[in-house]
Amino acid sequence: MTRILGVATCSRLDVADRFVPLFERLAPEIDLRAPRDIDRPEDVRFMLTFVPGDDAFTPYPNLEAAFSIGAGQDAIDTCPSRPEGLPVYRLEDPDQALQMAAFCVFHVQWHQREMFDIRAAQARGEWLRKATGLSPRSKRIGVMGFGHMGRAVAKALVALGYPVQGYARRMPDPPEPGVTHFTDGQMDDFVARSDILVNVLPLTPQTRGLIDAGFLARLPQGAALIHVGRGGQVDEPALIAALDSGHLSGASVDVFETEPLPADHPFWAHERVFMTPHSACIPVPEAVVRSVRARMRSDPSKETFA
Amino acid sequence: MTRILGVATCSRLDVADRFVPLFERLAPEIDLRAPRDIDRPEDVRFMLTFVPGDDAFTPYPNLEAAFSIGAGQDAIDTCPSRPEGLPVYRLEDPDQALQMAAFCVFHVQWHQREMFDIRAAQARGEWLRKATGLSPRSKRIGVMGFGHMGRAVAKALVALGYPVQGYARRMPDPPEPGVTHFTDGQMDDFVARSDILVNVLPLTPQTRGLIDAGFLARLPQGAALIHVGRGGQVDEPALIAALDSGHLSGASVDVFETEPLPADHPFWAHERVFMTPHSACIPVPEAVVRSVRARMRSDPSKETFA
Repeated sequence: MTRILGVATCSRLDVADRFVPLFERLAPEIDLRAPRDIDRPEDVRFMLTFVPGDDAFTPYPNLEAAFSIGAGQDAIDTCPSRPEGLPVYRLEDPDQALQMAAFCVFHVQWHQREMFDIRAAQARGEWLRKATGLSPRSKRIGVMGFGHMGRAVAKALVALGYPVQGYARRMPDPPEPGVTHFTDGQMDDFVARSDILVNVLPLTPQTRGLIDAGFLARLPQGAALIHVGRGGQVDEPALIAALDSGHLSGASVDVFETEPLPADHPFWAHERVFMTPHSACIPVPEAVVRSVRARMRSDPSKETFA
Repeated sequence: MTRILGVATCSRLDVADRFVPLFERLAPEIDLRAPRDIDRPEDVRFMLTFVPGDDAFTPYPNLEAAFSIGAGQDAIDTCPSRPEGLPVYRLEDPDQALQMAAFCVFHVQWHQREMFDIRAAQARGEWLRKATGLSPRSKRIGVMGFGHMGRAVAKALVALGYPVQGYARRMPDPPEPGVTHFTDGQMDDFVARSDILVNVLPLTPQTRGLIDAGFLARLPQGAALIHVGRGGQVDEPALIAALDSGHLSGASVDVFETEPLPADHPFWAHERVFMTPHSACIPVPEAVVRSVRARMRSDPSKETFA
């Protein structure tokens, strides 16, 4: 058996330390190494990474693919040394998508049921019973971004009876049953009809800074934002302003312009922000192995990843 | 058309005020009246109620059915004037069951993701990232009570990837796909395997006081309780003790021995109790009309409800 050689490298996380032993144990047909253990860089056929250093790709002239260890691949896409046209695969892990779906159901409930108020009422010792607005039919949910994650989120919400609309640049194939799809050019309509907006878009030049003051103003009065995409997509001062003005009733924010969030950031103490530390969904390491292997096997007529 | 005469009466809620106009508007074939507007009690064929007064049934010799306006019917079952054998129908509202399902998914997430800690960390300004334990496969969910509500809760959790087990006295018909069913005599096994236990049992003589110190001790170390059944089922001081000892990691409590909860109750200020004011699910009024009509039509060979 010829083992397929890969390099594990990342400027932010210990990708080699975490994954080299795991591939040894679970995927003997794959020879994953740290850069320091690569003898013949020309034999390296794939890279496993999350945030590659600027020159990460330079030593390896014969790469056939790069794999992200996470659901995002924006740092790989924008790496200056990445050869043009090199396929980049993000992690598609059904378990991780289910985590995301459950997390979004959680936050939809949080906002629909006005849990900021309910928690504060408990702290005050007040029996604050609101007997209306609990039907799933009373909230229109917008799922912005309709890949692997967006579809899982939409599916869970449709099953729970919510009217769900999805936005993606292109019509998803296949369309998701029960979902009203909006595509390129229909963003404003989509936003205006989203009582609770779930953002799961990837970070791209088109989505950077997308959720700004104008975008937030187009959401319905009293809307809530669940932001689980990427930090660079939200104008954070504009979000604070929309909450403080009462135009938005609340926000759940899992990803931030700067992570960890700086100590003086107004999100920490804001009573209408539910913060989580970039933990909406975290793949189990075994899923990374499965993801690389699945891609290798997806087209048996080719030797490897293409 | 002969209109079917019903009486709307309740010792706790304004059932007549709420439902007489609604039936007039939506169900012209039904003549629902307050007790004071009943001229010929012998013509009354059904009662709509929630908590009937002790003598509520006495004036009506020819009742064929009683309907609860909610998912519970314990107060009707135990009413001293209820004729033996009179069929009692609780409200089976798909919308309400979806509310319950989403509410339970919410609280499963709350406990699995240690949100008591996450919220406290935000208040302290601490980036508290826990990167493990997020997979749905890492928590075994027990759904105790497997009627209309329990099935909806289980279905939602199975769809999100959780290992779900159900307990009911008898095997549900049909069994729910993906659920391991436990029945009479297997309660202890069921409890011992429930990392998060969702109680949706109805209140009956068998379930009153069921969740006592011994029951809680049989839950796994660190388990969480989501209590959305009926207040009389939980020994509240025993629950506090199990939380304070650290045997339970948390509890979500929607129903209480006394409602509204008395001002001096320790649940209010307990940092491991997420209280909601008996609002897990609340039917829309229209669902009550639908429920009565649906039962009338379920057997066209009979004139009415039996």
